[in-house]
Amino acid sequence: MENGNASRGDDDVGVTRPRWRFSRPSGGTQLTAAGTMSIRAVLGRLNSSVDPSETRPVVRLANGDPTATACFQTAPEAEDAVVDALRSREHNGYSNSTGEPHARSAIAEYLSRDLPYQLSPDDIYLTSGCVQAVEIMISALAQPGANILLPKPGFPLYEARTMFSHLEDRHFDLIPERGWEVDLESVKALADDNTVAIVIINPGNPCGSVYSQDHLAQIAETAQELGIMIIADEVYAHLAFGDRPFIPMGVFAKIAPVITLGSISKRWLVPGWRLGWIAICDPDGILKEAKVDQSIQNYTNISTDPATFVQGAVPQMIANTKQEYFNKILGLLKNSADLLFSKIKDIRGITCPHKPEGSMFVMVKLDFAALDGFSDDVDFCCRLAKEESVLVMPGTALGMKNWSRITFAIDLPSLEDGLERMKSFCERHAKVEA
Amino acid sequence: MENGNASRGDDDVGVTRPRWRFSRPSGGTQLTAAGTMSIRAVLGRLNSSVDPSETRPVVRLANGDPTATACFQTAPEAEDAVVDALRSREHNGYSNSTGEPHARSAIAEYLSRDLPYQLSPDDIYLTSGCVQAVEIMISALAQPGANILLPKPGFPLYEARTMFSHLEDRHFDLIPERGWEVDLESVKALADDNTVAIVIINPGNPCGSVYSQDHLAQIAETAQELGIMIIADEVYAHLAFGDRPFIPMGVFAKIAPVITLGSISKRWLVPGWRLGWIAICDPDGILKEAKVDQSIQNYTNISTDPATFVQGAVPQMIANTKQEYFNKILGLLKNSADLLFSKIKDIRGITCPHKPEGSMFVMVKLDFAALDGFSDDVDFCCRLAKEESVLVMPGTALGMKNWSRITFAIDLPSLEDGLERMKSFCERHAKVEA
Repeated sequence: MENGNASRGDDDVGVTRPRWRFSRPSGGTQLTAAGTMSIRAVLGRLNSSVDPSETRPVVRLANGDPTATACFQTAPEAEDAVVDALRSREHNGYSNSTGEPHARSAIAEYLSRDLPYQLSPDDIYLTSGCVQAVEIMISALAQPGANILLPKPGFPLYEARTMFSHLEDRHFDLIPERGWEVDLESVKALADDNTVAIVIINPGNPCGSVYSQDHLAQIAETAQELGIMIIADEVYAHLAFGDRPFIPMGVFAKIAPVITLGSISKRWLVPGWRLGWIAICDPDGILKEAKVDQSIQNYTNISTDPATFVQGAVPQMIANTKQEYFNKILGLLKNSADLLFSKIKDIRGITCPHKPEGSMFVMVKLDFAALDGFSDDVDFCCRLAKEESVLVMPGTALGMKNWSRITFAIDLPSLEDGLERMKSFCERHAKVEA
Repeated sequence: MENGNASRGDDDVGVTRPRWRFSRPSGGTQLTAAGTMSIRAVLGRLNSSVDPSETRPVVRLANGDPTATACFQTAPEAEDAVVDALRSREHNGYSNSTGEPHARSAIAEYLSRDLPYQLSPDDIYLTSGCVQAVEIMISALAQPGANILLPKPGFPLYEARTMFSHLEDRHFDLIPERGWEVDLESVKALADDNTVAIVIINPGNPCGSVYSQDHLAQIAETAQELGIMIIADEVYAHLAFGDRPFIPMGVFAKIAPVITLGSISKRWLVPGWRLGWIAICDPDGILKEAKVDQSIQNYTNISTDPATFVQGAVPQMIANTKQEYFNKILGLLKNSADLLFSKIKDIRGITCPHKPEGSMFVMVKLDFAALDGFSDDVDFCCRLAKEESVLVMPGTALGMKNWSRITFAIDLPSLEDGLERMKSFCERHAKVEA
């Protein structure tokens, strides 16, 4: 095939094969950059680093999907609700672009339990997982010259989607020594007239933090001062097992308007069911006046939906899942977070500045003064995968070079095994002291 | 709330409420235009035109979702496959970004049955319905200055996504008098050095056409001559009930490379299950060399997936669904297409230039010389909805002003009822002859 020449093959004497016009790189540089920075691309790289001759099981501590572990299975009531919705044959057709009315009502009521006002079904947009909720919000807010404030460390889907949508991202710090709280001064320094929103992830991915009522109020007050909305990524809502309860950002929506992103993926342990939502927490109608709801609606008109029968299952799923189920999962997460935090202390070259209190993750710092021969966190993680078949996420993928994210949403024996392997890996690669 | 002023509320004496920076319209003009031109937006408008005091049932002939009709239900084997996949608890986790391996294999084999070469599982990307397949392809191909050739009439999701992605769309004609074949001369006149692809929808939405082997070969040869790839939208694959069989465009992929879009939505009558695919039919590796596969992969890395357990159900669904089921659905579609074509002849002011042979739709022409007081097809369709509670799609939404798209994927009594109401509507609004 001949490249880089747009003339027609049949115009040229002696050329027997056609010339294809699309032989330049497709999709543009933004898409290439966005696609290769994704969690999925990094996971692919880690997986391909594993030694094929390894006989031990691969210990997967890199991403937040515990469904392969026997103890982290969804509630039977949730499964039954989906089967019932499917068998009813009432949910095989196209959904409304914003979601099925009964499911929107059920989510509105579910979220309103923890708010000082009532959400209406019209405030809820059902999405294909929280991934699509992020896609919709970034697409709805992007416009020439605008910027958005993102946490560092954070969740790289935001960076990927903002890059793809030509929305400028600006990064504020989370402070490890203060329980990964937002550095509000850095937020104020970053914002300008073209800032549209600040993204807050609580409970924290990747940090395992759970913000206090006071800190959430401070964030809201800062957003008000700056005149920006808050996008509250609460995909780990209710997964708080430390001293602090989970408090939704929407509680403070009278101070600054909040758009909450959530899903059943984490609390019900079904990321593969692809059911999430956008909830507009806007008791004063500020976002409505700015037509943000209309932008969201416009994007849902031209994009896909969660499976209709999964939507149809939502009311029964919420009504029937027992508190004991949620308590059991929280107990499991707490035990494994405790194990991780205590074991990590014994590993040379790795420190954990803050004990995880929520979500499924913790951030640990790699101390290359104590470890020998690693160029950076990516090198560390790839060699850990290769030598020990233990997968942890390099911090670079989350905006924090020379850190690493470890999930504890895995059964205790596997977690212990993985940490033991990390320990022997670090000992093997420890710097020889003078 | 104060608009249009970016200064901080607390800087101004006497201003008690904050000023919000996002009070300009969100999402940009492209998104607004894209969202409002969608089928979903038009359906919303039609639905809201229906008289709330109407006692007769609403006859829905505007979109291709027959799942509300008792006779158009999916195969029990398909439903069982999804329940089995869910109950196995093996498909609750995140999917690979390109789709689950077993499901990709099953789709590769399923499509290869009708091709002169074998697709590999790596050629298949599973998508959340064909809607997401369109989103991915347009996103993967968009780049500054590029253009794409779209059929007129067509499916407006293409226009919406190209507009959103800043990919220029250029429209070639389908010729009603020639069975809605592509006007290949108009294709040649439109293409230039920046043309990346031509979109062919066969079986035809909105026209109900099924292209012959000869015409498909001519399209492929034209694409080769122009050096462009073919995007073959075959979401209505196998729904051909006239004299001509359905032939996939991929048969001609040695002439010009083909990217086939498909889904289980139409053949299995489950649009709400949200399972589609992109199949790269590229036996000579031309698209691979141009890294089109890499662009698709990049986009799937930053977007959502079909539900994992629906993917998990695909191998069993394909293996177990009986030919009798497909035959039954084809028979139903043929009967209703025949009824529609014969009844429409008796309606004054409406003509149908070509008897439908496939898909679920037919295009009819509105003759405003014979009808009184309509400004255009949108006016006609809204008033038909209002006065008769019959919903048909205005041609304007599909690129053909003063035409209308009617679906026949509905039970015969409802179709007959709808056509009777259309007849009395047209008689009531007929121009009084001099």
